[in-house]
Amino acid sequence: MIARIISIGTELTLGQCVDTNAPWIAQQLAGVGIACGGHVTVPDDRHAIRDAIKSSVRDAKWVVITGGLGPTPDDLTREALADALDSALHLDRASLDRIEAFFRDRNRTMPRANECQAMIPNGAVPIENTCGTAPGIRARLDAADVYLLPGVPSEMKAMFERDVRPSLHSTGDQAVIRQHVLHTFGLSEADLGQKLADLMTRGRNPTVGTSAADLVITLRINGHGATPDAADGLIETDVTEIRRRLGRHVFGDGSDTLAHAVGLLLGDQGETVAVAESCTAGLLAKRLTDVAGASAYFLEGMVVYANASKQRMLDVPGELIEAHGAVSKEVAESMAVNCRRISGARYALSATGIAGPAGGSPAKPVGTVYLGLASPESVQVKELRLGATLTREQVRDRTVKIALNMLRLELLRRKE
Amino acid sequence: MIARIISIGTELTLGQCVDTNAPWIAQQLAGVGIACGGHVTVPDDRHAIRDAIKSSVRDAKWVVITGGLGPTPDDLTREALADALDSALHLDRASLDRIEAFFRDRNRTMPRANECQAMIPNGAVPIENTCGTAPGIRARLDAADVYLLPGVPSEMKAMFERDVRPSLHSTGDQAVIRQHVLHTFGLSEADLGQKLADLMTRGRNPTVGTSAADLVITLRINGHGATPDAADGLIETDVTEIRRRLGRHVFGDGSDTLAHAVGLLLGDQGETVAVAESCTAGLLAKRLTDVAGASAYFLEGMVVYANASKQRMLDVPGELIEAHGAVSKEVAESMAVNCRRISGARYALSATGIAGPAGGSPAKPVGTVYLGLASPESVQVKELRLGATLTREQVRDRTVKIALNMLRLELLRRKE
Repeated sequence: MIARIISIGTELTLGQCVDTNAPWIAQQLAGVGIACGGHVTVPDDRHAIRDAIKSSVRDAKWVVITGGLGPTPDDLTREALADALDSALHLDRASLDRIEAFFRDRNRTMPRANECQAMIPNGAVPIENTCGTAPGIRARLDAADVYLLPGVPSEMKAMFERDVRPSLHSTGDQAVIRQHVLHTFGLSEADLGQKLADLMTRGRNPTVGTSAADLVITLRINGHGATPDAADGLIETDVTEIRRRLGRHVFGDGSDTLAHAVGLLLGDQGETVAVAESCTAGLLAKRLTDVAGASAYFLEGMVVYANASKQRMLDVPGELIEAHGAVSKEVAESMAVNCRRISGARYALSATGIAGPAGGSPAKPVGTVYLGLASPESVQVKELRLGATLTREQVRDRTVKIALNMLRLELLRRKE
Repeated sequence: MIARIISIGTELTLGQCVDTNAPWIAQQLAGVGIACGGHVTVPDDRHAIRDAIKSSVRDAKWVVITGGLGPTPDDLTREALADALDSALHLDRASLDRIEAFFRDRNRTMPRANECQAMIPNGAVPIENTCGTAPGIRARLDAADVYLLPGVPSEMKAMFERDVRPSLHSTGDQAVIRQHVLHTFGLSEADLGQKLADLMTRGRNPTVGTSAADLVITLRINGHGATPDAADGLIETDVTEIRRRLGRHVFGDGSDTLAHAVGLLLGDQGETVAVAESCTAGLLAKRLTDVAGASAYFLEGMVVYANASKQRMLDVPGELIEAHGAVSKEVAESMAVNCRRISGARYALSATGIAGPAGGSPAKPVGTVYLGLASPESVQVKELRLGATLTREQVRDRTVKIALNMLRLELLRRKE
């Protein structure tokens, strides 16, 4: 028993807006144990909408449609639903009264154009819109319950919470899907696949899936159960096992980031950090301070883009730059050590490299970066070869993530 | 002649991720005059993917598919495409060599699991992946060109730009949609609506639409024509007229950013800039250096998060911080003036404020920010009250945009 979601709007099919309604609805459905078999996005075209509805009801028990209920001529979903139902539209008095009241409450008279929003297909029932003008529509088509909701997210969500979800509950399907998200760093998707092969076999409950986004690989554990507790129990077992197998490669849950993980460790240990950045030019400091309360451990950053700045702000010897180049192990080390000394922070991270697109050489192609980490008793330097095909943005993003992970691992070592 | 887009991933159908690939691809297609007839999102299910492909090619001339090309067992798009093509998979040597080289370049050996990424359906051709391991696949099915691209946005976009778009151009479709994008800053969407009302009337060609994203309001001018030149001609007339009406509020085209506009002006005038940041903590420097070649005008940044850093790095008098607080007009002015003096840059921007969620007070609620701009003959200070309801991320983002726009307007004044 699956659901299908239909999003309507030419602005969506042309890609001028990102559809956030479908994912939100899919999550709500999952929360009450209804798996979504797929989403379809169609333009404001009466035939296309009708066809999408008709093909969705073939295998879905629930079809949730959003969009195309506005008062303008390009809003055709009401008509298309009537077509799919093989019925005509009628003016629903109660809905019209509510729309008129909506305007009256705002000391306005209803524009004639809004009257069409009270048109409902014969045999369907309106769903009250408590924060807008367009009522939703509920209809039965073949074996499916069809819900037509406004495209405006706030109106759609209010209507879903108030009318749709309760009616879904009453379908008697009590199974729930719960999800847990783990973020990993330092293993490839293939490595993860090998370490977790048995947990990722198809049809298993929970399901374990991976998705990669610029070096961070996220694991999604979805557990199905008769009750929330049952589902949570299954998930917890997997999460514990995955954490055991992956160890330090797991850096967080849910919405955690590497900066968040570093912040927690610094906070726990009462330590501080400062950064010296050339190629990342502020991004490392920015990421560390994305975390609310970062002022407890983040002291300062020196964005030494020009060589003169490296010398003046960080006492990097001009001869060192002369001898090895600004992008070198030696300069990265000097930046980290001096940043730590000058700032008085317990740890200092440094980054110098070639973000591109220009500035590469055979010896040091674009994507060559040197990272430094100065700690109380030691300094580490790491050479990165991120690959000359990455964009400037990617080189900088990955550099920062690898630097944050260096500090994270160092802090974990300290913890023992 | 329409296109269809298929997005693959259970994380998408369950609503755990928002699909940004489909809208991006739809925009690229519109840019070359190909209208997208709809998007479909299907889970990592071999049959569901095959069915989606087969039904898409019924009426589409182009089908672009993303996702499910990873090396893990839940990546089934290759197999599903082979099913749709009624053919088998074979190991593509050249692709395998490239994948192995990808790992070698990073001083790693290819995990066995990645080998499957070199499997290509018989009769299909691989598309090189210049920034990841999974090659794309191009195939012909019925009357449609089918492109299978990775789900990782950065890899997908690089592949689309490099291989897919050029091959689309060569299809010689007639009636074209061309798009021109203008970015504005400082006017509300309502202001724009009034100034451009006559150009925004429904059914007009070109169509002029606005979309707002965190203070930047973007105008999309879509022109339909029998030929690219005809469409471009229509657009050009509108663009010229819009630029005339909006003047300095327009800061760029296409993918331009405020930082890009500032960089062009600094470059033209042979000037330099440095920044002193507290609440934005590196984001201002990062945005300025997002622009390739920024080293020509960006000297350095001082991320003075701690008050001690404000005093030591920027000579901000401790008494000044005592008397007015770190978040004050006076401190912002001192930061900008001293940053300009110390760095030797011709211009210096400063930002100090309360990004939240904590740290607000009745007098200085979250979203209170002071910006400084030190120029050769003057210093300006601006107080922002961005609103306590914004997230930390939004406060920092808007602060940086307003600061960059301050500098942009100052540089434009100089130009005269």
